[in-house]
Amino acid sequence: MNRYEEFRALHRPGDPLVLPNAWDLASAAALVTAGFAAIGTTSLGVASAAGKPDATGDAREDTLRLALGLARLPVPVTVDIEGGFGEKPDEVAELAAALARAGVAGVNIEDGRPDGSLAALAPQCETIRAMKAAAPSLFVNARTDTHWLPGHGDETVARLSAYQEAGADGLFVPGLRDVAAIAALTGRFDAPLNILYAPDGLSVARLAELGVARVSTGSLLFRAAVHHAVELAKAVTRGDADSSGVPSYATADGWSTLYGRES
Amino acid sequence: MNRYEEFRALHRPGDPLVLPNAWDLASAAALVTAGFAAIGTTSLGVASAAGKPDATGDAREDTLRLALGLARLPVPVTVDIEGGFGEKPDEVAELAAALARAGVAGVNIEDGRPDGSLAALAPQCETIRAMKAAAPSLFVNARTDTHWLPGHGDETVARLSAYQEAGADGLFVPGLRDVAAIAALTGRFDAPLNILYAPDGLSVARLAELGVARVSTGSLLFRAAVHHAVELAKAVTRGDADSSGVPSYATADGWSTLYGRES
Repeated sequence: MNRYEEFRALHRPGDPLVLPNAWDLASAAALVTAGFAAIGTTSLGVASAAGKPDATGDAREDTLRLALGLARLPVPVTVDIEGGFGEKPDEVAELAAALARAGVAGVNIEDGRPDGSLAALAPQCETIRAMKAAAPSLFVNARTDTHWLPGHGDETVARLSAYQEAGADGLFVPGLRDVAAIAALTGRFDAPLNILYAPDGLSVARLAELGVARVSTGSLLFRAAVHHAVELAKAVTRGDADSSGVPSYATADGWSTLYGRES
Repeated sequence: MNRYEEFRALHRPGDPLVLPNAWDLASAAALVTAGFAAIGTTSLGVASAAGKPDATGDAREDTLRLALGLARLPVPVTVDIEGGFGEKPDEVAELAAALARAGVAGVNIEDGRPDGSLAALAPQCETIRAMKAAAPSLFVNARTDTHWLPGHGDETVARLSAYQEAGADGLFVPGLRDVAAIAALTGRFDAPLNILYAPDGLSVARLAELGVARVSTGSLLFRAAVHHAVELAKAVTRGDADSSGVPSYATADGWSTLYGRES
């Protein structure tokens, strides 16, 4: 079973893959060490770690460098490539093929655009088709931002149908949190449905009941990590820091061993 | 007042600079936003984020890339350059000059070596002299690892004397946590003393009483951040996640604005 098949098999409707999203090689290694079966990336975290805004394509090189590192992990890895980091389907397909060759198991490709619009449907489908043609063994998770951008909610089914038709392996609707709507989508589509976990939304257990096959954490872990560091620094200053449970220097230094030696 | 003078003025014996150590541009920006007056880096965090072991020199390029980004922050920044990322004093001095030109306010240079030995004293002093000659406006914080490496504790005073004599702006003794020993060092040296905060060691307030001028957090914030992310991912899976206080997507995406536009 190759990485693609291994990753695809983790998408079980009703028993979803909980996919934690890393932003660097340390967070990814620590999540693997904790037992997570696959690792995603958060485009916000990757861009922000590099001092760049999310979803603008600015973090292309940072994302690719990270992807090449993550591909050395012993579990399947899926990379958020925002809108594809390219204007033309061929460019995105070339990137997809390069990631697949590097050992990446999957990617997220989104139809939201930096200006707050949705990509036109036909070229987005063309991009997905080109990606699958260039990289048949790459799990293409087609994300529609119909629930993140205002005024597009009723386009969701049409978009997902078209993306599935174009060859997407998975369907992702971040921002969707309505029980009936989620159940309707899992009932309608063969491709596994990915929902974004939200702290004030549905639990993983509830999403499982609705037939969801993958629950990702998006940028949550990244935001929580940075927040926690800042709060700890403030507490050290005040004199009431609690750092119980924090891994030792040696443990943290050992995370790099998961990447082996660079060839 | 330039960045060097601004940074030097923050070292006040008895009223120490609490220096939080960042590992990427996001953690640094969030710490600046929280009001910290200066930012350091953690070599463990920087190396680990890049999938590399600490203190081996492997993370040279990652450290330099990060330093160039951090120099765009509106507060003084000091960079941990491990043993100097070079064999010869001239190489380290060249790096120091490049960092100063980029707008970095200071560096940490350590005498511990990857094989667990201490650098010979004379060449280490020569390196510090060369750094200050090449970059007079770079705060050179001379770190001695006499308290981290076994069997060297009684060399501390001689090393610090030599480093101060060689032109070091500050003196750093990580691992030192004995009250009398710290007080003896602050009483003996003109150069400001930097102590590493330890969760089970002395508080910032106690270190202030002892005349310490700078308290850094080392790799603690990095380790705590990654740990927190992993624990949150496990809690999401279990269904008992608490992510109260975590900054919003928009807040986190805004951290990149501190770096302005690349020129």
